[in-house]
Amino acid sequence: MHILVTNDDGVQAPGLLALAQEMRKHAQVTVFAPDRNWSASGHVKTLERPLRVTETMLADGTSAFTSDGAPSDCVALPLLGFTDKVDLVVSGINPFSNIGHDVTYSGTVTAAMEAVIAGVPGIAFSLASQDKPANVLTDYSHAAQMAGIVVQKVIEDGLAEGVVLNVNIPYLSVETIKGIMITRQGLRVYRDALDKRLDPRGRPYYWIGGEAPTGVNEEGTDVGALFAGYVSVTPLQLDLTNYKAIDVLKNWIFQK
Amino acid sequence: MHILVTNDDGVQAPGLLALAQEMRKHAQVTVFAPDRNWSASGHVKTLERPLRVTETMLADGTSAFTSDGAPSDCVALPLLGFTDKVDLVVSGINPFSNIGHDVTYSGTVTAAMEAVIAGVPGIAFSLASQDKPANVLTDYSHAAQMAGIVVQKVIEDGLAEGVVLNVNIPYLSVETIKGIMITRQGLRVYRDALDKRLDPRGRPYYWIGGEAPTGVNEEGTDVGALFAGYVSVTPLQLDLTNYKAIDVLKNWIFQK
Repeated sequence: MHILVTNDDGVQAPGLLALAQEMRKHAQVTVFAPDRNWSASGHVKTLERPLRVTETMLADGTSAFTSDGAPSDCVALPLLGFTDKVDLVVSGINPFSNIGHDVTYSGTVTAAMEAVIAGVPGIAFSLASQDKPANVLTDYSHAAQMAGIVVQKVIEDGLAEGVVLNVNIPYLSVETIKGIMITRQGLRVYRDALDKRLDPRGRPYYWIGGEAPTGVNEEGTDVGALFAGYVSVTPLQLDLTNYKAIDVLKNWIFQK
Repeated sequence: MHILVTNDDGVQAPGLLALAQEMRKHAQVTVFAPDRNWSASGHVKTLERPLRVTETMLADGTSAFTSDGAPSDCVALPLLGFTDKVDLVVSGINPFSNIGHDVTYSGTVTAAMEAVIAGVPGIAFSLASQDKPANVLTDYSHAAQMAGIVVQKVIEDGLAEGVVLNVNIPYLSVETIKGIMITRQGLRVYRDALDKRLDPRGRPYYWIGGEAPTGVNEEGTDVGALFAGYVSVTPLQLDLTNYKAIDVLKNWIFQK
């Protein structure tokens, strides 16, 4: 079993280290991650320029590869043969949850999608650490332990073709986490606002500002599970077709 | 009716101009597009830095806004109040098709997703111009005319909440296009290969190379429709949950 560990926060992110250390308990591990933070970068594939790959060291002294490409590039290169054959790709641990509509923006999730498009199972791990007290450093140890439990099950049972697992973990100790819940994608509520400012030369510039997103606390969803203190495991797919809408649109008559 | 026109190829791309000109026949139009090419950039939201907005001119002398943000930012800013209320967002015309798994990579498609997440209908238009003779300049006039037919129908009938329309147009004249087909998302076949080279100083660098992607020519899909000479109209959704997989995963027992 050979597991590739990547993320979108960059190779020196503490969430990556915690995930890599946990994965080493289950399999041979290669770490291959971007050399910088790509948060909210979406699903990027770098085709217009070549990529550099450097060998570097994680904080625990183990070896890792890093590239100037995007998270998905850090999946594509190993899967195209830069490393030995990869059996499973895990991405994270992202410091914030990736729930609801976050999934298409998230480099953590799209890195797992990249694996599944290439025919290798992919799992994204995110920690809902925005719920932790602001003066506490993020501790990934409990999240890593929960990630290990999910990965162990995937190693045993496998995943159906085309399934991406999107796992979100509440910021709680393993003892207080209520359990692991299989969920559907919930609804994010974005509260962005346009924040217009003037630069020192009097010219306008714009921030996408506003308040942090919330979610609709609905039973059975990733949002609801986190609210209730559960790990959410949401199976995602790459077929985005809205089949219900097809039936409606098939009645359309176009005026050529 | 106020239509926002954007793209991922940059404000001076000919496909944007053709789409903007066509849309002016149907509604009041604002053009707001990135100041550079963001192809294969995925769903990017710029939260870590502020954005500049400049007023510029398209090749036909009409006014357009441009920003140093990503395609989705060029949708978010107007929808957050930079312009008057927007009723419909159209994105494109992309010079190449966006079919099968392309949809999560595509800045053209994710710009339309951004609109739908904000509650405004969104349509992505792409032209399968990779099928044209290599020595012929891309002509967007027929594609724009087909885009007008689809938009007219959306203006008349509306779109259900949460539906993103992904429209792909074959590189054919309006007369030879067989019709407009409602389709599901098909399967892309990527043929990427790792291309390792040495720089002038003997150090390795890597291209994601290989051959252009193809698709599985299956009836009822976007891929199949284009092969058969039809415009494909695929309704997409933002809920990526794999509901079939949920039933399987619910039988999982996790070893804590």
